[in-house]
Amino acid sequence: MAQKPSIPKGTRDFGQQEMAERNYIFDTVRSVFVSHGYAQIETPSMENLSTLLGKYGDEGDKLLFRILNSGDAFAQVDFDKPLTAQVCEKGLRYDLTVPFARYVVQHQNEISFPFKRFQIQPVWRADRPQKGRYREFYQCDVDAIGSRSQLCELELVQMIDEVFGKLGLNVVVKINNRKVLTGLAEICGAADKVVDITVAIDKLDKVGLDAVKAEMLEKGLSAEAVAKLEPVLLLQGDNAGKLSKMRTLMEGSPAGLAGLDELEELFGLIGDAGVGVECELDLSLARGLNYYTGAIFEVKSLDWEIGSISGGGRYDNLTGIFGLPDMSGVGISFGADRIYDVLKGLDKFPKGLESSARILFANMGRNETAYLFPVVSALRAGGVSAEIYPDNCKLKKQFDYAERKGIPFLSITGGDEMAAGTIQVKDLASGEQKVFSKEDVRGIISFISE
Amino acid sequence: MAQKPSIPKGTRDFGQQEMAERNYIFDTVRSVFVSHGYAQIETPSMENLSTLLGKYGDEGDKLLFRILNSGDAFAQVDFDKPLTAQVCEKGLRYDLTVPFARYVVQHQNEISFPFKRFQIQPVWRADRPQKGRYREFYQCDVDAIGSRSQLCELELVQMIDEVFGKLGLNVVVKINNRKVLTGLAEICGAADKVVDITVAIDKLDKVGLDAVKAEMLEKGLSAEAVAKLEPVLLLQGDNAGKLSKMRTLMEGSPAGLAGLDELEELFGLIGDAGVGVECELDLSLARGLNYYTGAIFEVKSLDWEIGSISGGGRYDNLTGIFGLPDMSGVGISFGADRIYDVLKGLDKFPKGLESSARILFANMGRNETAYLFPVVSALRAGGVSAEIYPDNCKLKKQFDYAERKGIPFLSITGGDEMAAGTIQVKDLASGEQKVFSKEDVRGIISFISE
Repeated sequence: MAQKPSIPKGTRDFGQQEMAERNYIFDTVRSVFVSHGYAQIETPSMENLSTLLGKYGDEGDKLLFRILNSGDAFAQVDFDKPLTAQVCEKGLRYDLTVPFARYVVQHQNEISFPFKRFQIQPVWRADRPQKGRYREFYQCDVDAIGSRSQLCELELVQMIDEVFGKLGLNVVVKINNRKVLTGLAEICGAADKVVDITVAIDKLDKVGLDAVKAEMLEKGLSAEAVAKLEPVLLLQGDNAGKLSKMRTLMEGSPAGLAGLDELEELFGLIGDAGVGVECELDLSLARGLNYYTGAIFEVKSLDWEIGSISGGGRYDNLTGIFGLPDMSGVGISFGADRIYDVLKGLDKFPKGLESSARILFANMGRNETAYLFPVVSALRAGGVSAEIYPDNCKLKKQFDYAERKGIPFLSITGGDEMAAGTIQVKDLASGEQKVFSKEDVRGIISFISE
Repeated sequence: MAQKPSIPKGTRDFGQQEMAERNYIFDTVRSVFVSHGYAQIETPSMENLSTLLGKYGDEGDKLLFRILNSGDAFAQVDFDKPLTAQVCEKGLRYDLTVPFARYVVQHQNEISFPFKRFQIQPVWRADRPQKGRYREFYQCDVDAIGSRSQLCELELVQMIDEVFGKLGLNVVVKINNRKVLTGLAEICGAADKVVDITVAIDKLDKVGLDAVKAEMLEKGLSAEAVAKLEPVLLLQGDNAGKLSKMRTLMEGSPAGLAGLDELEELFGLIGDAGVGVECELDLSLARGLNYYTGAIFEVKSLDWEIGSISGGGRYDNLTGIFGLPDMSGVGISFGADRIYDVLKGLDKFPKGLESSARILFANMGRNETAYLFPVVSALRAGGVSAEIYPDNCKLKKQFDYAERKGIPFLSITGGDEMAAGTIQVKDLASGEQKVFSKEDVRGIISFISE
């Protein structure tokens, strides 16, 4: 019985052109990671739910895809108790960070610290699918764990600079420090309201000063506290200027001053290293507040309106949940799907990311094909992608195939060429046609290579 | 609360060395596929269960990993009916073939046929985990669909030849044809017993002639039928000789003769194309009997005892289950995990598949580090992987890090070198030490590159 085929909502097929473009992003990211001495690991798609639950908040727990236990999952079930926990022990990974923390703890005796790893794998979230949000998507994470040196933060900024430089995208790196956010709450006597304050400040660009102040009051901050925070909201100028003004404001908050020290050191390193990308101190940046403890990063495209395309920060306690304390790390995640959307939107994918062969040899019959075998094999051995059309059908059909697939060169080599010991090759774009001796594989390669 | 971290049974973490080795296999396979004009696609990890169920037999259905519906899966459930079907609509893909068939049907209007695609992705099976059998493993599939030409079969054999040639493994390609198996059943008047006959023949090497004959009798074949099959079991000699003897035996079976015609054509093409790998007609080969309709392939390592490391065949009806009839295709799957085991077992992985940087710059302090920045950036831009140790700690510790990670060169550049404008570099294996002007990045690259 024929079924109309479809795929689950929120998931995608990637065709050949899209794969070539996606691989271009992955290859770029990977080459930068490798040039900095980061090496790849992979973790299983499924983790024990005990590893995943409670790490992403209540909302995250709900968005985990759970896998039904194999065998008869309902055989031993107590129907008077909640069923989900009884029939599912495993879930699909929700991000790459928690599995990485689990990996570090589990393999701590095999790892050389500081441990510099990257990981490019899909993650799954049972989010409501919508434009630009998928239930299966790739993350490209790079982390250094086991050092508190801010050279690690610098390296992340350098890698952001290099990745987006290679991709030809103009971006800004927004930088903040979690300790400064703690300091803000401390100086206005509301240490328990870090989240409320940050959430409010985060909306400054969108809703304006008065609305932010109103939200803070509504969340229970005193008028005096809000007045203390107002200079932060009005902060203008370059990074050095902002840092210097913040120092005055932060007097009396050891956490805040420590955060400013870290920021100052990092901006100093960024300057000394000659990082090209624009780096901007943004005191309203607060992503991932749950586990970040130091630097916080976010990357935005300057030419295409879309959320952050990369982000991360330093976390001092990530592996603590799995029993390994005092293991500080810092990392960022590159959002492949959003970077794809930006490159597509700005038409910035390089031309020639074709996934097709360079040359198609038309099929003129059994003997003609046998005549071609050594030439085609030599081309492939020489690094050129080459096809022989499988069927001896009308030339029009074979030509159409080359055109639809974007194969730039076509060889129609028949009886005359065989008699002469030659190979004919045509450039389909220019119409230029050349004839080579069948031994002159180098000549053919040079003609059909870009 | 600290949890002792672990991963689900049958799944694996891949560390940095293992990833480098696995990527070597994937890159080799990919480069061969691309050189023949095959292009990559990816399909979602989860498919609708309606796509997967019934495609792998009853046993396969049981081995599917099912995903619990998101939200409250049990809210609308009728507890008087079987629960699994009510609470799970999606499953993890079991192989790459059925999703590929679904893809071809779903995207038939965007595809240029013949469609040459490859796909390298993990699959999941709830098999009982055991040595060499995992619940998550990668498949590398390559298929051409939309042509009945045996040039497609030839191309698969060429790709097998090239992949294992590049990997440095001695293999034999065993080749059979499903129509010949049909023919065997026909000539002994037991057309309904193809599977029984094939299963019995398949054991010939292990159990010997008498046991195979006994099994056939036990399965209900007549003594006369078994006598007719005996010459097939005793078949010896080269491929041409076997084919010629089979022609006599197959008289009266149109299917069998058609299969022999196909085999003869294919072996002719293999000869004309000068394929290097040993190809052997093996009439007992019957893998994937369910959907193969023509050629059947299996690759075995000659130097390492393990099941087949690659296999496939032609299927005329694969997309028919999704409503697209008459779409013949042929493909093979490379088993990355088994190929890994063979390369590991024979110690055939190339040396220098290191995942580490080429050079570590020791951290001698803040100013020394800043002095290194332009050199390190230039090395990376020149394609060399380079690290600066993040912490200014004892040199012994930094040296140990380089050694444990297998970083072959170490630079200890301090105040003296800064004053002289130089960079010191040491080859940790030979002990050779050189000093370069800090502008001489080319010199450094040439010294530290292999």
